[in-house]
Parts: sequence; structure tokens; C-alpha cells
Amino acid sequence: MTNLPGIVITGASGRMGQMLINTVLNSNNARLVGALERPGHDWIGRDLGAAMGGAEIGLNVSDDPLEMIAQAHAVIDFTAPAATVEFATLCAQARCVHVIGTTGLSEADLKHLNAAARHAVVVRAGNMSLGVNLLTQLTKKVAAALDEDFDIEIVEAHHNQKVDAPSGTALMLGEAAAEGRGVALDNVSDRGRDGITGKRERGHIGFSAIRGGDIVGEHDVIFAATGERIVLRHIATDRAVFARGALRAALWGQGRKPGEYDMLDVLGLSEN
Amino acid sequence: MTNLPGIVITGASGRMGQMLINTVLNSNNARLVGALERPGHDWIGRDLGAAMGGAEIGLNVSDDPLEMIAQAHAVIDFTAPAATVEFATLCAQARCVHVIGTTGLSEADLKHLNAAARHAVVVRAGNMSLGVNLLTQLTKKVAAALDEDFDIEIVEAHHNQKVDAPSGTALMLGEAAAEGRGVALDNVSDRGRDGITGKRERGHIGFSAIRGGDIVGEHDVIFAATGERIVLRHIATDRAVFARGALRAALWGQGRKPGEYDMLDVLGLSEN
Amino acid sequence: MTNLPGIVITGASGRMGQMLINTVLNSNNARLVGALERPGHDWIGRDLGAAMGGAEIGLNVSDDPLEMIAQAHAVIDFTAPAATVEFATLCAQARCVHVIGTTGLSEADLKHLNAAARHAVVVRAGNMSLGVNLLTQLTKKVAAALDEDFDIEIVEAHHNQKVDAPSGTALMLGEAAAEGRGVALDNVSDRGRDGITGKRERGHIGFSAIRGGDIVGEHDVIFAATGERIVLRHIATDRAVFARGALRAALWGQGRKPGEYDMLDVLGLSEN
Amino acid sequence: MTNLPGIVITGASGRMGQMLINTVLNSNNARLVGALERPGHDWIGRDLGAAMGGAEIGLNVSDDPLEMIAQAHAVIDFTAPAATVEFATLCAQARCVHVIGTTGLSEADLKHLNAAARHAVVVRAGNMSLGVNLLTQLTKKVAAALDEDFDIEIVEAHHNQKVDAPSGTALMLGEAAAEGRGVALDNVSDRGRDGITGKRERGHIGFSAIRGGDIVGEHDVIFAATGERIVLRHIATDRAVFARGALRAALWGQGRKPGEYDMLDVLGLSEN
Repeated sequence: MTNLPGIVITGASGRMGQMLINTVLNSNNARLVGALERPGHDWIGRDLGAAMGGAEIGLNVSDDPLEMIAQAHAVIDFTAPAATVEFATLCAQARCVHVIGTTGLSEADLKHLNAAARHAVVVRAGNMSLGVNLLTQLTKKVAAALDEDFDIEIVEAHHNQKVDAPSGTALMLGEAAAEGRGVALDNVSDRGRDGITGKRERGHIGFSAIRGGDIVGEHDVIFAATGERIVLRHIATDRAVFARGALRAALWGQGRKPGEYDMLDVLGLSEN
Repeated sequence: MTNLPGIVITGASGRMGQMLINTVLNSNNARLVGALERPGHDWIGRDLGAAMGGAEIGLNVSDDPLEMIAQAHAVIDFTAPAATVEFATLCAQARCVHVIGTTGLSEADLKHLNAAARHAVVVRAGNMSLGVNLLTQLTKKVAAALDEDFDIEIVEAHHNQKVDAPSGTALMLGEAAAEGRGVALDNVSDRGRDGITGKRERGHIGFSAIRGGDIVGEHDVIFAATGERIVLRHIATDRAVFARGALRAALWGQGRKPGEYDMLDVLGLSEN
Repeated sequence: MTNLPGIVITGASGRMGQMLINTVLNSNNARLVGALERPGHDWIGRDLGAAMGGAEIGLNVSDDPLEMIAQAHAVIDFTAPAATVEFATLCAQARCVHVIGTTGLSEADLKHLNAAARHAVVVRAGNMSLGVNLLTQLTKKVAAALDEDFDIEIVEAHHNQKVDAPSGTALMLGEAAAEGRGVALDNVSDRGRDGITGKRERGHIGFSAIRGGDIVGEHDVIFAATGERIVLRHIATDRAVFARGALRAALWGQGRKPGEYDMLDVLGLSEN
Repeated sequence: MTNLPGIVITGASGRMGQMLINTVLNSNNARLVGALERPGHDWIGRDLGAAMGGAEIGLNVSDDPLEMIAQAHAVIDFTAPAATVEFATLCAQARCVHVIGTTGLSEADLKHLNAAARHAVVVRAGNMSLGVNLLTQLTKKVAAALDEDFDIEIVEAHHNQKVDAPSGTALMLGEAAAEGRGVALDNVSDRGRDGITGKRERGHIGFSAIRGGDIVGEHDVIFAATGERIVLRHIATDRAVFARGALRAALWGQGRKPGEYDMLDVLGLSEN
């Protein structure tokens, strides 16, 4: 048991943080060695299990990333850009795998990560689910294999609290399709179709956004031609898939050469 | 055979006209007694089968509706408003069932039909497929049975030549849902969702339009709540379903009391 | 708050019991007044919240149904036949609504419930989700409205731990379809289609069972004809829908005339 | 126009033959130079257009494959094994591309084709639609990328006249999935699931067959894990897709090195 890779979770009190903690606690392939929150948070110093509303587990929440990361094999980090940059430096020093699900990183932030990746494994992805990353890869391949006789439409469904449309994952799939075809998505994107739109333009990529209930996330990439259709579909029914993807990345990174990776590398689907 | 109801098809040379003709020719429950085109059309006087590019069938295309309708039990009519109003008068005189798939009728046109319906059976519907009409009925019932915890979304897919969105049938389904809930569709309609939309508003009805390939017509009415979803779906794969619905209406109308009817009456689903 | 109907949950320590407890605790329309377990269970006398692994809530688990039910407005009961029959007697005495999700009841058990229903409201259903009950009702109506040109197929998907196929709900949907057509399901049922089956027989009802992952429960009722299809679909993504349906039944039963009811009555969809 | 590749269609009077003829006649990239039927067939010597029930097209149906193939760039052949073997010999002599959709070929037949492929391009596939062939390729890749946490289920739907289940294409997809996982399909196949089946076995591949209406062919390959699912779907709505795939193969083969190819080669998806 003690030989299993030790994992530190950042942002421990957040919804994603708690999901990551539970995922590691339930795993047979990793053990939880640290849970971080920002200084001043009322979880600091408390038993993590109790703070989460359950039984004690003998691990206190810490506000000292240096100490935590020094003893870790991997840090899984879905927080905010400033924190992520700080963790990247510490991971680089500790030669510790840094799995990043943080979004909204600036160019400057990405440079920091790039520098850190000279010393440690950095895995970063906008969506950590294996399924969506695989779907992105497939979308690019199919878009490259089929010509414009196949109209591409991307349809996504999410819960009624989501504030933006189309989803970031839908746009990622659109980018993959455009890349497969060798075009720029901005030039061929059909969004918000409504009213007298005229006939669909050949080569365009359409987006539709369905909103309702508590749908976790569903994405269809449709390739529709005369007489036949291919649909590549991903259905997420539990946000834990993102946590499991992150843990898989943390384990995959053990013993790997320093550098920047994404989930396609983790899946063994990268073409490079 | 000669006891079967005799059917006249108007607009014989059009895509829908030819589909109606083939549907009647292939039916065991009706016989074709006339095919009408407008005076001057180059099919006038020709054998109908030959004009359609096949073998002769011994029936010439006519430009004389009075003569044709006088001998008919039903006229199936997917033409234009002016012609439809004229046919309605002739059907009323002949006590002949008038099945109308013509769209774009004005209030004045509808008054004409209303007058004609004092003497003959008039069946009129925006979509003649049994399935869509049944779906409309179901949509209204389900919307009435479920409260606003269930978000309603209507998703349709059509071929890439369609110039408007959402489809007329999607809007008809939206009207049925709004009616079931006792609200006005215009007040709750979410169309063309794109960008920072904010959270979905409770009670709204969303529309999405997918365009690709040669999809004949697919409609989903989604009722999405926390933890469960109901989807009412119709898939049309052949435009002949519209022709078969029209023929069914023509047969249903035989011996029926004069009046205005729709496909829900034909299906036996009307609540009145 | 204290005017809200008071609910007792039986089988408190079970997976369904805990889900029911959380549903009532989170409701604004009901309050939890009792949690029952069988005598000797190690939860007896403990604080319910603590027993469930969380914070204390000031309500102890009891093994005395008489005392609990005497103060309740409704009992929600997903246990076993013997216990359910006992609770039914107590509910009848207390004029307390009895919502029953227990399965496997014998004819003799049902007679007991029937007797109890002379004094109290009894609501019983094999599946408490609103969606599935509504789907059952729709299935019967659509099967009655459409003739045998529409082939009926029922397709269900469940998690990989399920040991029987097709699901009980699929069979319930099949019964509804058969009833709508006025036939006996046993005479028209196509199950386990495999090998050289010959052409599909007109009027038959087919069943398919998909098993994979942790799918909570998905059911499609397909009506497929030439050129068109209607699909009635239910997707459950959270077992809590069964708990919410049960709570809705408990609230619906308040002030209602004694008698036996099902979820169609609760939904206002019963035709009787 | 006369520089376009000249195509010969065999089995001209059959349903597939006529579909192939119409596909070539409507193409801007090929021209029809011959239509073959067996000696004694009543179409022999007649104008092909008239024989098909339309207008004359100035090309007579022939029973002389030698003469026809001598002037052709490609032969598209959906007939029977004996005829296909004969055509293969003639194509080899004429260095003419031979596209074969014939099924039921024996090992001996395949040896003949193999010999012919030393002199001419032979393209052979059990399903000529681009979409299905692409789906097969994707299925193998995804099955290889994902471990057995993902349960694989293959669901197909076809018209009510189909006599076997699962479809040949479903089995082809199952083979691709098994190959991706490095297992033998026969050892892991779950077919005709019905009754008390027990829990799903890890690593198995399930098959379900839906039959109804005039469904041309729909195939889903489902990869279902805890919390997420990937679905690869193909929908054929028109048998013409098989004809178009065959024509594409005929054009692709022009100027290509002699040898045996399949649709994955035509699509540029072959890994070899």
C-alpha cells in the first residue's frame, strides 16, 4: 500500500476537489498524501474526512504546498491560474507529476508551465474524461477521411444552469473537425441557427446547444451525407469521470520523461 | 375494384403530386380516377404514366377540375392557395372529400374552406404524417401532465437545402407544448441559443435546428428534469408518409358528416 | 415548517432508504418525522444523520413502527412483503398514506393491502418515477392509435450488474403496448432474437436488452412503419427519481379518499 | 465526357443492379458503357432505359461479358460467386478494375480473385458504404484504446423482412472490436440475451437486433463505462450509399497498381 504513488489534491473544499479526493481514496492504485486549501480557509488544520461531512480519515487539510508537494508523486490541480503557476514551480522542483485541469490560463501562465515541464511531467487538458479526448481524436480523423459531401454538425446538451453556448467541449470538437479538414473554424462556423438562414453552406460546421434538467454533458458529432450518417457520441453521466481521467494521468506520468503532455498522450492516441 | 373510392390528385406533375399518384396507384383501398394540372401545362392530355416517365396507365392528365371532381369520392390537394380555394368550391358542390396539404392559406382563404365545409368533408393539416400528428398530441398531453421542473427542448434535423429554422413542424410541436402548459409560445421561446446566454429560464421552451445531408425530417421533444428525461421522437425517412397520411384522410372522410377536420380527427385522437 | 406533512421512511439503512431520507430532508414540502429499521439493527437508537455518515440531525432511528406511524402523515416503504403488510395495517389504523415501492408481493399480500385501503390511501407502483409511469400510459395510447403497420420494439439499457433481461419496466411497457392493441403479450412477444429468425411477424412486440457500465435505466418504445418511426424514450440518470416520485405520491395522498392508487392517479393520467 | 472512366454494371435487372446503373448515370465522374445480364434474360437486347421502365437511353443490355469488359475501365459486380469468378478472369485480361460486392464467396472463389488481382485492381467489401467501413476502422481503434472497464455492445436495427440476426455488418463490427482487444469474438460474444442471464461478464461483447418498418440499416457500437459512454453510430437511409461506395471504389482503382483492396484502402484508412 505504501508503495502506491502518493497524490496531493489542491482546492480540496471545492466540488471538483472533493470529487478528486474521493476518487483517490477509492482507488487501489494510488494513495492520498495531501489536501491543500488556501491560507485562511476554515478547513485548514481540520481532518479532511470530517471537513467533508463524513468520518475522520487521519489526514489534515494543509495550506503549505511546499511541504505537501515535497512528499508527493503527483499533484492533481483544478484551481485557478495564479495558484496553478505556483504549484507548477513546486512540482518542477520536486520532480512531481502535475496534472492540470485549471482553465482560463493566459499565454504568460502557459510559458510558466512550459518552463516547469523541463523538469517534471505536466499533463494538461480542457476536459479530463477519457471519452471526450478520444472523441476529439476520432473527430479529427473522420473529418480528414470524409469530404465535404458530409455536413458536420456538433450538438451538445447540458444542465439548465450552464451560462454559455456552445460548450467549451463542443468548440474543442469543432476545432478538431476543422483541423481535420484543414480549415479555420472561425471561417466555417454556423452558430445560433434561427429564422430564414438560407440553405446550409457546403463545408460549414454547425453547432446546437440543448439545455435542460441536470444533464452532465452529452456531445454528438454528426457527419451527414446523402443516404448515410456517422455519429460520434459521448455521454457523461457522472462528473467523477473527469476525476478518474485526472488520476489516470497522474499514474501514467510516473517515471515518464519531463515534458508537456495532454490526455491524448495518456490514452496513447497521440499521433506525434 | 370499381367500388373502391375514386381519388383525384391535383398538381399532378409536382414532386408531391407524383408521390400521391404512386401512393394511390399502389393502394388496395382506393383507385385513381383523375390527375389535374393547370391549363397550358405540357402534361395536359398526355397519358399520366408516360408523363411520369414510365409505362402507360390509360389515364390522361386533365385541366378540367369540374369534370374530374364530379366523378370523384375525394380530392387530395397539395397545391397553392388560389387553386385550393377553387377546388374547395367544386368539392362542396360534388359532396366530395377535400384533403388539403396546401400551406400559406390566408384568413380569407380559410373562410372559403369554412364555407365549403358546410357541404363536404374538409381535412386540412400542416403535416399529413400520422406520426407527427400523434406526436403533437402527445406533446400537449405530456406538457400538461408535467410541471416546469421538466425543461422542454425541441430539436429538429433536416436536409441541407432547407432555408428556415426551426422547421414548421418544430414550431407546431412548440405550440402544442405551450398550449399544454397554458402559456403563449412567443413568451417562452428560446431560439438560436449562442454565446453568453445566462442560465436557462424556468418554463422556457428551447429550439435547436440541425442541418445536414438529405435528412427527411426528425423531431425530438425533450422533457428534461433532475435525474430523468422523457423524449418523444419522430423520424421520417420517406416523404411518402405524407402521401399515405393524405390517402388515409381521404378514405376516413368517406360517409362522414360535412365539416372541417384535421389529422387528429382522422387518427381518432381528437379530444373534442 | 411544522405544518408540513410528516413522513416516515422504512428500511432506513438501505440504499433506497437513505435516498428517500435525503429526498425528504431536502424537500420544502415535507418534513421527516421518523426512520425505521428492524429490531436488532445496529442503527437503532442512533442519530440518523450520524448513522448515515454525516452530521447529527436530532432524529434517532427507531424499531417501533406503531409509535412512528401514529404521528405520521405518510409512510414511504421500499422494504419486503412481510414488513409492508404489517406497515399497511398500522397505516390503516392511523389513516396515514402508505406509499409502497416494495416488489414481489403475493396475492395474499395484495389482499391485505386491499383491506387496508378501505381506511387509508395506499399508493403502489413497480416503478415510482414519474417519467416511466407517464411513458407507460403513452405507450398504451399510441399502441391503441396505430395499427399493426407499426412494428413495436422495446429496447432497454441497464448497468452491467443487472441479472435479468428484459427489465421489469420493459415488460411493463410491453404489457401496456399489448393492452393498447387488445392482445396478450405472451402471444406476441419476441425475445432474445438471434440466428435465423425468419421475417418479423406482423403484430409482434420485440425486446432487446443492452448491458453496460453503470447505466441507471433507459427505455425506448419504438413504433416503426414504412417511412416513419415514433420513439417514446425514458432516460433515468439518478435513482433519486424513484425517491422523488414516492414523495410526490405521499404528498398527493394527503386528504384524499381512502383507496388503492397507482402513479398514474398521482400524475392525473388515469383514465378511470 | 468521353474521357470519363467507362463503367460496366453486372446483374443489371436486379435491385442492386438498377441502383448501380442509376448511380453511374447520375454521376459527373463516370459514364455507363455496358449493362450485363445472363444469357436468356428477357432484358437482353432491349434498351436499358426502357427495360427499367423509363425513357430510352441508347444502350442495350448485353449477355456478352467479354465484349463489354474489353471496353470498360471498371466493372461493378453485385451478383453471385460463379459469375463473379468469371468476370474476374475477364477483368484481369482487360486490366479493368473489378469492384465486387458479391457475398458468399468460397475459399476456392477467393483464390480465383487472388490470382486475378495479379493483373488488375480488385476491390472487394461486404459492405460498400463509406460510413460503415469507416465505423469498422474506428471500432477497432477505440476498442484497442480503451480497456475492459468499457463494456462493448453492438446494437443494430433493420427492416422487418430481414431473416437473420445480428446483421452481417454488426458481426463485422464485433470482429473489429474483438480484434482491437486482441480476443476472439466467438469467445466473448453475448447474443440473444434473455431471462436470468446473470451479471454481464467483463470483456464480453453484446449484440442486440431491432426489427421494424423499412429501416435500411442502423448500427451502434457502444462503449459503456462507469459515468461515461462513447457511441459510434452509422445510419443508412438509402441503399444508394452502397452503390455510391462501389462507384467511388471503381474511380479510386483507376491507374492503381494491381492487387486486392478493400474499402479501407479506398477511404485511405488502411493501416498497412
